[in-house]
Amino acid sequence: MHVAIIGLGLIGGSIAKTLKKNSDWFVSGFDISKETLDDALKCGAIDSVWSGEEAIDADITVLCAQPTVSVEFLRSHIGLLKKGSVVTDVCGVKEWVVENCGKICDENGLYFVGGHPMAGKERSGFKNSDENLFNRASYILTPVDSTDENAFNVAKLYVETLKCAKLTVTDPKTHDRLIAFTSQLPHVIAGAYVKSPSCLDRKGFSAGSFKDVSRVATVDERLWTELFMKNKNMLLNEIDGLIEHLTAYRNAISDGDEAALSDTIRKGRIIKENDLLNTDERK
Amino acid sequence: MHVAIIGLGLIGGSIAKTLKKNSDWFVSGFDISKETLDDALKCGAIDSVWSGEEAIDADITVLCAQPTVSVEFLRSHIGLLKKGSVVTDVCGVKEWVVENCGKICDENGLYFVGGHPMAGKERSGFKNSDENLFNRASYILTPVDSTDENAFNVAKLYVETLKCAKLTVTDPKTHDRLIAFTSQLPHVIAGAYVKSPSCLDRKGFSAGSFKDVSRVATVDERLWTELFMKNKNMLLNEIDGLIEHLTAYRNAISDGDEAALSDTIRKGRIIKENDLLNTDERK
Repeated sequence: MHVAIIGLGLIGGSIAKTLKKNSDWFVSGFDISKETLDDALKCGAIDSVWSGEEAIDADITVLCAQPTVSVEFLRSHIGLLKKGSVVTDVCGVKEWVVENCGKICDENGLYFVGGHPMAGKERSGFKNSDENLFNRASYILTPVDSTDENAFNVAKLYVETLKCAKLTVTDPKTHDRLIAFTSQLPHVIAGAYVKSPSCLDRKGFSAGSFKDVSRVATVDERLWTELFMKNKNMLLNEIDGLIEHLTAYRNAISDGDEAALSDTIRKGRIIKENDLLNTDERK
Repeated sequence: MHVAIIGLGLIGGSIAKTLKKNSDWFVSGFDISKETLDDALKCGAIDSVWSGEEAIDADITVLCAQPTVSVEFLRSHIGLLKKGSVVTDVCGVKEWVVENCGKICDENGLYFVGGHPMAGKERSGFKNSDENLFNRASYILTPVDSTDENAFNVAKLYVETLKCAKLTVTDPKTHDRLIAFTSQLPHVIAGAYVKSPSCLDRKGFSAGSFKDVSRVATVDERLWTELFMKNKNMLLNEIDGLIEHLTAYRNAISDGDEAALSDTIRKGRIIKENDLLNTDERK
């Protein structure tokens, strides 16, 4: 199997390293940085550099850039990719990407299957990529009604070769609704949280909960502006819900209503305890 | 040195175990649960049980219960404690506790020094106590103008014997202002966050950021209702600030204003990056 990785950042670099670790697949890499390509070749993350200027016979092409860049790359390079091959991506929003990439592939005799590995770090770039990034992660694939079954099976084989902890298969809309909650909202929270003036004086006054809530405030604004904007309605719904629930705490405290405050803390505790019972995340 | 630990829960139990690990101090324990006392004796966390009914010659008494329970215990047992000895506590709010316990000690010839170890787990009880809980933690002491210097030095010696990573000395009001941000607000966020209906479907769609933000939603509502209510104004100020900053994200997304959204993500990133530069928490 020949896989082409487009963009050797944190995710693309980790995919390349993991495929090389787990299989004898041939991995080609494309990146705008010559230094990154040199590093990737040197450490064995890729077998070969693809210039993006000649035809490539990859069976699977993995777009590892942010949504607009991934779509534009596919549009401008589709003629160089092998007819009948499978294209997938790693973007954090799926409806917009699947619609656009699906159309480009359809019109050119290739197959698109949307994907999203649920793994990351608060630091980006090939230098932070890691052959163990996906060990405990879910990988989400988002086929649609028109997705070719053979193409889906090839995408599945690729995910299985990464040896992620779990493969989740869902439709793009469900993906975007749940990711708005599990991933995008925590990134909004982190950035809003650290803007408190108290953050400047917090040294010597903090423990795990400060660190956990603020961790992902370091994300890149170019990528996340696009992810948030391309999932506008789902994310707005989550932010509004959060503000409503925060306001319940706020009003109970302001009113000195201990019963109401205790009740809202208790409800949160029960939801989280049930969540832990239904998953293996306590480990 | 003889230390009496009042309440052998997560924090009291961990203090007892840590003192026994690090020193030859004699540790007495009081708890309302006979089973906990038996467990603590058996594993060597305490040398002796204090019934709370006879006089005790401890040099330091550490109140390890929630604020009202700690104050009421001190009020009802002060006659059994040694004149001139030092009393401290571990409560997450300091103005209210220091005012009340300080008065009781003053009137009875003992010395009070407020304390707060910045360590915890999302699970409570002696069974979760740990002789390594304080290894990487700050321990905050909150003397006031009238605090006796010798008494403060005894409290300091006790903290040093725990071998925490850092001793922070501040006034009760500064403590309460900063803890509202570093600890209480993340607990409010966690409980509000998990109330999204999406939380019920999140299995297979989540990664580290979900786990981090929701982790402390499991806290006990009796303790935290009291901690929030006894730090009402400081916490309200933080919740209101957070809602304001969340609303900035909300409005930028709703307006489709990419520049404003990018700007607010960028500002959060810069604050967090500076915070990491100023501390050693990247390790």
